[in-house]
Amino acid sequence: MLLNINSKVLEKLLAKVIPAVPQRTPLTIIENFLLEVTDGKLIVTATDLHITITAYINVDADQNIKIVVPAKLLFDIVRSLEDTNILFEVEDNKRLKLKTEKGVYHIGFESSDGFPKIPEVSSKRLLNIEGTLLKKLIDLTSFAISKENMRPAMQGMLLELSPDGLKVVATDGHRLVKHLSKSFEFEELEQYVIPERAISIIPKIVTDDKISIYLDKSHLQIDVDNISLFIRLIEQSYPDYNAVIPLTNESLLKIKRSDLNSAVKRMLLFATSNFHQSRMVISTDKLEISAEDIDKGSSGKETIWCEFSGEPMNIGFNTAFLNEVLNHLDSETVHFKLNSPTKAVIVLPEEQKENEDLFMLLMPVRLNS
Amino acid sequence: MLLNINSKVLEKLLAKVIPAVPQRTPLTIIENFLLEVTDGKLIVTATDLHITITAYINVDADQNIKIVVPAKLLFDIVRSLEDTNILFEVEDNKRLKLKTEKGVYHIGFESSDGFPKIPEVSSKRLLNIEGTLLKKLIDLTSFAISKENMRPAMQGMLLELSPDGLKVVATDGHRLVKHLSKSFEFEELEQYVIPERAISIIPKIVTDDKISIYLDKSHLQIDVDNISLFIRLIEQSYPDYNAVIPLTNESLLKIKRSDLNSAVKRMLLFATSNFHQSRMVISTDKLEISAEDIDKGSSGKETIWCEFSGEPMNIGFNTAFLNEVLNHLDSETVHFKLNSPTKAVIVLPEEQKENEDLFMLLMPVRLNS
Repeated sequence: MLLNINSKVLEKLLAKVIPAVPQRTPLTIIENFLLEVTDGKLIVTATDLHITITAYINVDADQNIKIVVPAKLLFDIVRSLEDTNILFEVEDNKRLKLKTEKGVYHIGFESSDGFPKIPEVSSKRLLNIEGTLLKKLIDLTSFAISKENMRPAMQGMLLELSPDGLKVVATDGHRLVKHLSKSFEFEELEQYVIPERAISIIPKIVTDDKISIYLDKSHLQIDVDNISLFIRLIEQSYPDYNAVIPLTNESLLKIKRSDLNSAVKRMLLFATSNFHQSRMVISTDKLEISAEDIDKGSSGKETIWCEFSGEPMNIGFNTAFLNEVLNHLDSETVHFKLNSPTKAVIVLPEEQKENEDLFMLLMPVRLNS
Repeated sequence: MLLNINSKVLEKLLAKVIPAVPQRTPLTIIENFLLEVTDGKLIVTATDLHITITAYINVDADQNIKIVVPAKLLFDIVRSLEDTNILFEVEDNKRLKLKTEKGVYHIGFESSDGFPKIPEVSSKRLLNIEGTLLKKLIDLTSFAISKENMRPAMQGMLLELSPDGLKVVATDGHRLVKHLSKSFEFEELEQYVIPERAISIIPKIVTDDKISIYLDKSHLQIDVDNISLFIRLIEQSYPDYNAVIPLTNESLLKIKRSDLNSAVKRMLLFATSNFHQSRMVISTDKLEISAEDIDKGSSGKETIWCEFSGEPMNIGFNTAFLNEVLNHLDSETVHFKLNSPTKAVIVLPEEQKENEDLFMLLMPVRLNS
């Protein structure tokens, strides 16, 4: 006997690790789990070379072993089983035998020799953070991460430790999101860039409780209970985002978020060409938003009450980007701070939450006429 | 003013008709709704040439008109609106104007000249049936409809009116489902073949209440409240399915459906090549089911208690087909009537429901060794 484990316990363990297994890869060995049994502990690891997840559990085991097994097949078998005991045995012909009350299953295994090493994080920096906050920060910023690979650093979320607090930033050059949590304090300014795929995996691992994040120059490590997540950071310096934040946006637009957001969603139906362009005509007490599809001869225009402090302005936006910015705010009223139809626009919630500072920036698009 | 209608009322109407609009078609006019306003009635029609859905509603209208408008755009605009009144107007430049409290939307329209005619059904035959029963019959049989176009009639569900009752049949040559509702009685035997795409649309239109189905040689018409669904039938005679039903299957296997079904689902993980082959070894009181993936060196085998009256038998099945047959039975115990490893197998629920007769047939596959 190699080990003896309950199917549901093993399923839970494998479910935590499998997100790191790549969907398609030329390096076939990483389609496997690294399965290690050592001194009564079962350790399962998966990696796509950028992200590594490893989880362990104490088991009833007689033998030590270190092999790789097809990840998807093992996971599919285990989760298809009812709540039952599984007895694992190693057979001579490089096959793993799984025995339950009703059935016997065989899976080929291989030597673990070619399996990538688990990264080591030198634990220079420790960040303790509530899981809920980390997940909220990811949810707030991830939509603005760049999908283009012109500047690798922009394909990640900036995590900035500073004397002001904990800052996260994401931008693709068209919009920028910046969030500051003031309840943190760090002596020196340090920047880490977390790649997008890692950003999508963190919420699958992190619970709502307090977690520990270890950081060094090249890696980030998150420990949650019996699971460790290792992320290879983007080792490029993040662009100086402060340089693009305008200081002279003095025209203030106050508008009910739900009114504008529902109008913008309808404009998406018409703004199908021309960079998804919508036009805003802003005057003292009302905002007119319109979009048209010239090819199809269709168009939409809506009028919304607002408060505006500046000179009447005609300004264009990418409707999809405007929609995403509004979707990621939750205040009843939002503030737009404008300068001119060609300058970046600041978008803010009317009231900041306690100990927080949320800031968004949206570039206008040039109107056709 | 053309007409005045509440957005949610119109959304409900359009939602019933839009399933007939084809996803992609070289005939662009059928990407439109036919919109007809006549004597205070709004009639909306969509067709993919095989299926036509038309629905009407009484409206507040000043004008009569018959035009075509882009179906998806109109539906998307209407369902994106809150609960509000929409005022429709026809503008000179072939544009339809929709006006709400907050916004104005324009949609290009065209002449209805090229729009296909709505079929007329000569109402030779009327079938009254509960919507729940019709939906159940579709659910029971549709999986067995052939996906191959070798024999067009097999790409549909046979609806047979006979002195015995109402019969539905579907088969792809590998499995067959036949269901008889004995509470019907018809003087003569008549056969109608309903194409698969229509089969998937009927449940979207039909409620649980009693509905009227009109049939003639080429079309089927279903009327539900203010909606009519027209289906072009497959005008080919259905194969003589009775000829393939074996009479000499005397070996009876009784087995708990959930036990076999869950084992079969696990065998699907291993039966990835070789026509998804599983092997059954059946003896007096137990059934052994196994499958293997020779390339990957993985395999599974399970043992299930059963009652079997015949000589021990080794028989192979396509695991996916066996799984679908078991998924569509709901009795606690199922009966397999077998003859030999190369002959069709009859699968039945242990007890038939009142006034019903459900019958399934599954072809075995030849075992490799």
